[in-house]
Amino acid sequence: MGESLEARFGLAIRRHREGQGLSQEAFADVAGIHRTYVSSIERGKVQVSIGIAQQLAEALGVPLSRIWRELEREFPSA
Amino acid sequence: MGESLEARFGLAIRRHREGQGLSQEAFADVAGIHRTYVSSIERGKVQVSIGIAQQLAEALGVPLSRIWRELEREFPSA
Repeated sequence: MGESLEARFGLAIRRHREGQGLSQEAFADVAGIHRTYVSSIERGKVQVSIGIAQQLAEALGVPLSRIWRELEREFPSA
Repeated sequence: MGESLEARFGLAIRRHREGQGLSQEAFADVAGIHRTYVSSIERGKVQVSIGIAQQLAEALGVPLSRIWRELEREFPSA
């Protein structure tokens, strides 16, 4: 597998956030999550619950199903 | 919102499992997760990490993105 699901998920969130020109701080504010927690998630350093994953996707305005699909395409074993 | 995300996810997992004619026990075996934990997840009684969600989807042979899309369709606020 290589990278953990958390690491791959974190990268996807970061890519979407940066694609929207959002700083980690601004994004954390919108998501209602502490900035250091967002940072840990983006670096794949923490377990992420499906509730937090959904909250992050909503803050990005991207369906979580789309983020999963992107991960499945990038890592077909996922 | 009504039902929690965990409850909705648990129902989706249960629906897929039953649709495949799998007992909770057989499914837990395939997923490599304790049966009582599967039971708690299906009843929406516990937080679920994205890693466990992925593990359950793999055991069902259904992409997690598809399960999530179903949830988004059923609950457009998701």
